[in-house]
Amino acid sequence: MKKIWQKDDVAANKLVSKFTVGKDLEFDERLAKYDVKGSMAHCTMLAEIGIISPEESQQMLAVLEEVLQDIKAGIFEIDPRAEDIHSQIESVLIERLGDTGKKIHTARSRNDQVLLDIKLYILDEIREITARTDEFFQLLIQLAEQHKNVLLPGYTHLQIAMPSSFGLWFGAYAEALLDDAELLFSVKNIINKNPLGSAAGYGSSFPIDRESTTYHLGFQSMNYNSVYAQMTRGKTEKLLAMAMAALAGTLGKFAYDVCLYLSQNFDFISFPKEFTTGSSIMPHKKNPDIFELVRARCNRIQSLPNEFILLTNNLPSGYHRDMQLTKEILFPAIDSLKECLEILNYALPNIQVKDGILEDEKYKYLFSVEKINEEVKKGSSFRDAYIKVGQEIENNAFDFEAKELNHTHQGSIGNLCLDKIEYQFNKVKHKLLG
Amino acid sequence: MKKIWQKDDVAANKLVSKFTVGKDLEFDERLAKYDVKGSMAHCTMLAEIGIISPEESQQMLAVLEEVLQDIKAGIFEIDPRAEDIHSQIESVLIERLGDTGKKIHTARSRNDQVLLDIKLYILDEIREITARTDEFFQLLIQLAEQHKNVLLPGYTHLQIAMPSSFGLWFGAYAEALLDDAELLFSVKNIINKNPLGSAAGYGSSFPIDRESTTYHLGFQSMNYNSVYAQMTRGKTEKLLAMAMAALAGTLGKFAYDVCLYLSQNFDFISFPKEFTTGSSIMPHKKNPDIFELVRARCNRIQSLPNEFILLTNNLPSGYHRDMQLTKEILFPAIDSLKECLEILNYALPNIQVKDGILEDEKYKYLFSVEKINEEVKKGSSFRDAYIKVGQEIENNAFDFEAKELNHTHQGSIGNLCLDKIEYQFNKVKHKLLG
Amino acid sequence: MKKIWQKDDVAANKLVSKFTVGKDLEFDERLAKYDVKGSMAHCTMLAEIGIISPEESQQMLAVLEEVLQDIKAGIFEIDPRAEDIHSQIESVLIERLGDTGKKIHTARSRNDQVLLDIKLYILDEIREITARTDEFFQLLIQLAEQHKNVLLPGYTHLQIAMPSSFGLWFGAYAEALLDDAELLFSVKNIINKNPLGSAAGYGSSFPIDRESTTYHLGFQSMNYNSVYAQMTRGKTEKLLAMAMAALAGTLGKFAYDVCLYLSQNFDFISFPKEFTTGSSIMPHKKNPDIFELVRARCNRIQSLPNEFILLTNNLPSGYHRDMQLTKEILFPAIDSLKECLEILNYALPNIQVKDGILEDEKYKYLFSVEKINEEVKKGSSFRDAYIKVGQEIENNAFDFEAKELNHTHQGSIGNLCLDKIEYQFNKVKHKLLG
Amino acid sequence: MKKIWQKDDVAANKLVSKFTVGKDLEFDERLAKYDVKGSMAHCTMLAEIGIISPEESQQMLAVLEEVLQDIKAGIFEIDPRAEDIHSQIESVLIERLGDTGKKIHTARSRNDQVLLDIKLYILDEIREITARTDEFFQLLIQLAEQHKNVLLPGYTHLQIAMPSSFGLWFGAYAEALLDDAELLFSVKNIINKNPLGSAAGYGSSFPIDRESTTYHLGFQSMNYNSVYAQMTRGKTEKLLAMAMAALAGTLGKFAYDVCLYLSQNFDFISFPKEFTTGSSIMPHKKNPDIFELVRARCNRIQSLPNEFILLTNNLPSGYHRDMQLTKEILFPAIDSLKECLEILNYALPNIQVKDGILEDEKYKYLFSVEKINEEVKKGSSFRDAYIKVGQEIENNAFDFEAKELNHTHQGSIGNLCLDKIEYQFNKVKHKLLG
Repeated sequence: MKKIWQKDDVAANKLVSKFTVGKDLEFDERLAKYDVKGSMAHCTMLAEIGIISPEESQQMLAVLEEVLQDIKAGIFEIDPRAEDIHSQIESVLIERLGDTGKKIHTARSRNDQVLLDIKLYILDEIREITARTDEFFQLLIQLAEQHKNVLLPGYTHLQIAMPSSFGLWFGAYAEALLDDAELLFSVKNIINKNPLGSAAGYGSSFPIDRESTTYHLGFQSMNYNSVYAQMTRGKTEKLLAMAMAALAGTLGKFAYDVCLYLSQNFDFISFPKEFTTGSSIMPHKKNPDIFELVRARCNRIQSLPNEFILLTNNLPSGYHRDMQLTKEILFPAIDSLKECLEILNYALPNIQVKDGILEDEKYKYLFSVEKINEEVKKGSSFRDAYIKVGQEIENNAFDFEAKELNHTHQGSIGNLCLDKIEYQFNKVKHKLLG
Repeated sequence: MKKIWQKDDVAANKLVSKFTVGKDLEFDERLAKYDVKGSMAHCTMLAEIGIISPEESQQMLAVLEEVLQDIKAGIFEIDPRAEDIHSQIESVLIERLGDTGKKIHTARSRNDQVLLDIKLYILDEIREITARTDEFFQLLIQLAEQHKNVLLPGYTHLQIAMPSSFGLWFGAYAEALLDDAELLFSVKNIINKNPLGSAAGYGSSFPIDRESTTYHLGFQSMNYNSVYAQMTRGKTEKLLAMAMAALAGTLGKFAYDVCLYLSQNFDFISFPKEFTTGSSIMPHKKNPDIFELVRARCNRIQSLPNEFILLTNNLPSGYHRDMQLTKEILFPAIDSLKECLEILNYALPNIQVKDGILEDEKYKYLFSVEKINEEVKKGSSFRDAYIKVGQEIENNAFDFEAKELNHTHQGSIGNLCLDKIEYQFNKVKHKLLG
Repeated sequence: MKKIWQKDDVAANKLVSKFTVGKDLEFDERLAKYDVKGSMAHCTMLAEIGIISPEESQQMLAVLEEVLQDIKAGIFEIDPRAEDIHSQIESVLIERLGDTGKKIHTARSRNDQVLLDIKLYILDEIREITARTDEFFQLLIQLAEQHKNVLLPGYTHLQIAMPSSFGLWFGAYAEALLDDAELLFSVKNIINKNPLGSAAGYGSSFPIDRESTTYHLGFQSMNYNSVYAQMTRGKTEKLLAMAMAALAGTLGKFAYDVCLYLSQNFDFISFPKEFTTGSSIMPHKKNPDIFELVRARCNRIQSLPNEFILLTNNLPSGYHRDMQLTKEILFPAIDSLKECLEILNYALPNIQVKDGILEDEKYKYLFSVEKINEEVKKGSSFRDAYIKVGQEIENNAFDFEAKELNHTHQGSIGNLCLDKIEYQFNKVKHKLLG
Repeated sequence: MKKIWQKDDVAANKLVSKFTVGKDLEFDERLAKYDVKGSMAHCTMLAEIGIISPEESQQMLAVLEEVLQDIKAGIFEIDPRAEDIHSQIESVLIERLGDTGKKIHTARSRNDQVLLDIKLYILDEIREITARTDEFFQLLIQLAEQHKNVLLPGYTHLQIAMPSSFGLWFGAYAEALLDDAELLFSVKNIINKNPLGSAAGYGSSFPIDRESTTYHLGFQSMNYNSVYAQMTRGKTEKLLAMAMAALAGTLGKFAYDVCLYLSQNFDFISFPKEFTTGSSIMPHKKNPDIFELVRARCNRIQSLPNEFILLTNNLPSGYHRDMQLTKEILFPAIDSLKECLEILNYALPNIQVKDGILEDEKYKYLFSVEKINEEVKKGSSFRDAYIKVGQEIENNAFDFEAKELNHTHQGSIGNLCLDKIEYQFNKVKHKLLG
């Protein structure tokens, strides 16, 4: 197939073509429907400002609607000889409508098309990620509530420190998701600006109406400056990667805790056998592979911002073909993040927490601060009580009857503030899903 | 000096002490005033809930106020034998007030103290960064307005593409700052939550009132869950690093453009000699060192998020001493970012833009799309006109009288939308400064 | 298919299985032949030490040979229900040989199997990379020789500095490949050590003979310590990634230069049209997409070491399932690097260099140091001559008749030392291919 | 002080000067002696080829020798008004020798000077790092030998797996250092090439003799091509950073293991109290801060290669001022790595290993493979024995009398191959120290 921009018959060299097209066809499939929607808004606008006639617009919209239906039905295919999704859809219009189809590319470029497609795609994926994060959040809140009275050793420096609880532990990760969602929301807002009309990065001499396409495509605002609109390529992906990395940081840390707590040396939690994996050599093994893989995948996701920075830094303004690779970096990472959330949401309801953990002798020093606090309540200063209890420990004379713990302040064992955390999370969630 | 938590006379080994204290004393200076403010809020609250008496509170507040004055006067010194700023201030209280001073550490830990200090410090630095970014933004807007009619070649793939202008170029970076400011604002909101009261990460059995310290310290909200509050150590720094990296990405790209445009092969702009640097061997050189160094520093700043991720990933929940290094990673980077903005704000008003750049023969093809558009206005379809003009170029028959350009749509050469960009920037700026 | 290590009928949950298997089947195909070779060496050794009988060994070797032929013929398939390549091959042995097949896994684990497979695969790929790098090297040397008299402006700070030549430019990248090859060779040596026999990372109570498998598999040495052998998982991939990143750094910089030199503002080189790509909107464009994509891919490859560090840092010793992801990170990157070399080797012979570049007025200051040197030869000190010429330039009185340049020292325009560079490169190359 | 290259009286703007000089003066101190040595070799060579007279050479060498003595005595100071160390030393020569001093900069540039200085500095630091690594290696070998019979649980997936030993554990890290040393040695070889004479990156029209300076400075070879010689700036630092990152990866993993094994939940090792740190709130704490900080610092060091890549990627060939920052990135990291080795070498001799760890009931399944192997020795196939033992475990019927372990193969508990590892390490070490 001759390329749309091809001026003569010099056959595009096969190897060059293979190298430059790269993995585009594979990833452009995801962009197909957004490309059609963009073309529809563009076409509508062209008619509004009189560049094309209402009839031409109607004809093009009809074909685009057919293509959209084909895409939704899964029967739209990108011709392997097409350079990319944008050329393919323009070709369909030309094939079916002749000269009218040749008008669609007026006042636009593939540069603003792909930018638009990626933004629309990302905005949809942000909704998906939010929905799965919400499910994980709700699970954590439920588990925190359910196990709020089950105590756990709290560690600092991986050394036994002070009493904690499963309520605090699950709740901590729920609250972490709140902050991650806030960051994601701000990234969504930054992305939610229309780049269409910036063309190749320097606008057009046609009097296009970018407010119109902004409205028709449902964007909140627009990237005004055409040169800046082009700069958002790469930056859009990088900012999303940052928000994904923050979320992945939370999931990865949770997965690390799970792996540790499943170790026989901690033995705080367990999962039914079907959530673990065996060994080819050791018949007793029940390995926490899904959590190790969540951790590992989340570490990969955390490498994304840096990868985008490496791709884009030290490039002067103006489009560069380097940007093509953002798709193959970002898209599989989005899938991977969603799969991590999916498997966590699937596994987590099956978590079993151990009771009576603190009864083990080795945990007795967890209560050293409790004992100090009792001394303080009796009138000692904190620092003096600290020294006294320290000496008891030194002399192996430390003893403490671990009665009911009575932690009452906000965010402590006895007062998890789950309702407050939930209220705030839901507020952000609704903005993210909107 | 015996450490505050020291229980007996085993002299802390010097080498261990040197290694563990590291660069803390150097960086803790910046935290001193925030540590005092945190202690004041803590002390006030301890009295409110009756853990200490009003008199004790008054005495401690008076000493803390003195320390604060000393810090502001630049005469407060951290004893080189003190382990850190927190111990130092507790020591002062004990020294001056005896038993009363020994009560300050009730219901808190150095873990939540340092978290608090870092957050308060960062919130102040965000204001500083905002102020300097604002200055840079206003310069860009002014320069865009001033030079809006001076044309510039627009490039894609570093190949001559379509006409651009200094208005578009300066304006693009102004709009970039808008998005960067939006990200920074969201990070500010996430940081702007009180961690005090989480103690060592597991709260306290004292009925402390975290709403009170949240109010007294001017936080917008609190990190509720004590375990999560501790998790914000490292995460706080990482999120700020992400926002700094986004801003640095913009500054670095601008600096790259400047270096390119200053090259004799572009020769679009110039600076007075005092903003350039000479060579030890080539007497004709006027090197753009300040812009190269802005670019290089901004590349370093863009490596920050990854550095924090490396420091914190794969660590289970609970404080680890690893976190100490966040100070020596973050603080100099904040300085560096502010210095980059300072030098840009100093140099940019002196930029000189060249006129008549497009008159050079090599830029004539910039107008190929203009010619296509003219054909389209005469009735041709875009794709046919594209092919026609393409053939003219192929046959060396392309010619185009570059009359006045008439780009009118939003974000194009003739319609920079600077007012809209400015309005939105100012909105975010005020929230950031607030 | 029941997993080989499966102890009862609890059906492995589908979602868990899908998540944990991940992309293994896709990537394990490459490892198939190495897994068979490893099994052959293991089997031979088991017979040598009497754990299995010579007959059993013969039977197993025969089946393994068949499998190897199937793999080479492209007709070996991994059962989609198999967990991985290792299980698949064990299954074939059991299926065809019954009880004898069940003996193959004696004294080994999938942990040392996959380590072995990856090392053997990498050693082969290093040969491939070397062969393509060699081709690129020879091209650069030829081009340097061919164009050694064609002058080019040399830049520092992107400012016109001193005369350079195409000979120097091509030759510089050839010499860069020499250093990259040296690093790759050292990494090859580190990888070229047999891990087989380390089993799950703690060895075996069977008296296996690791010298034997080391010999049969052609390794140079062995990873002695079983715990360390396991630690080389991830480290092996990381070290290779470092060497790949160094090579990619060279290719990426070369591609950047090419993109710059192809810009109309430099216009030092050109390529036939079939090596460039057009624009959908601008009919005059001949974009250097292949070089931009080489640069971009090489930037991705340069992100690899960091990605492996993120995956492996902060994990304690002992195998973790996280390591599974090294395959999906490394293998496509190896492909990508080879493709970059392939396209460079394809395009580079078609490069056209411009003659007479320095005749342009703007390049006259390139000769300022030549003029200083002439003064020095007449008796002036360097610093005084520098000041004198500097004043001429300042007063627009600089003039210099650019006669023949007479640079004669090693590594200068007139003495490229290509033979010396070639000699050293060939020495390393032969060790890499050996 | 007027800059050496300064042509007129325009006072270099203070802010510009401060920004461009940056932290150079601080870091250039380390380079002083290498700069003098480079000047001595350059001066000697200039006389050899007759550019300066023997008398001039003698005079300059005498002054340079004085400067070198001053540096060694710690009384040489860089004038705060000097731009850098190179200008400072040229100034001293001019000040003391007048016109003769003005000849030193003939046929060189600060670009090749700083490259040379950094390479010489790094070569010395590699020796320092090697010496400390050697000390750590010897300690590990000693400890492995000393505790070779003390058993330890071996983990995979952080799950109890098979028996290990302190001998295996210490020995593993010793062998890791062998591979790290091999990488460092290859990097040393790549760095060990003379860049002097490449001047600003395009050589000189003087007939300098680079073989002479290569010989006088003790380099193994030279970077021939002048353009490539300049490219080694940044690349040199990056390659060293890779070798440092590999070593840091080993130290960091060891430190992680130590932190884990010190946790009460593992409790495999301990250190005297003076190697641990207390808590301001919990009197019972003995925190492993030095190991956490080694881990954290090693994570920072592992971020170095990426930082250098970010600084240098996407820059075209030719010197850029960006390179100045390599000093402030690399030099403190070298210090930090050496300090990590120092503290490990100080602490490790004090490690106490626990005996009888495996007696705890939870470790009994460590022996499941031992039991399988016994079945195999009795005639069962491995896979059948695996299933049989698996069922015993399933039915809580597993029991195993942990007699003496009899692991005999290379790299197993009973055959640590310490002598072989030591032999190979010493071989590389001597090359590194040479």
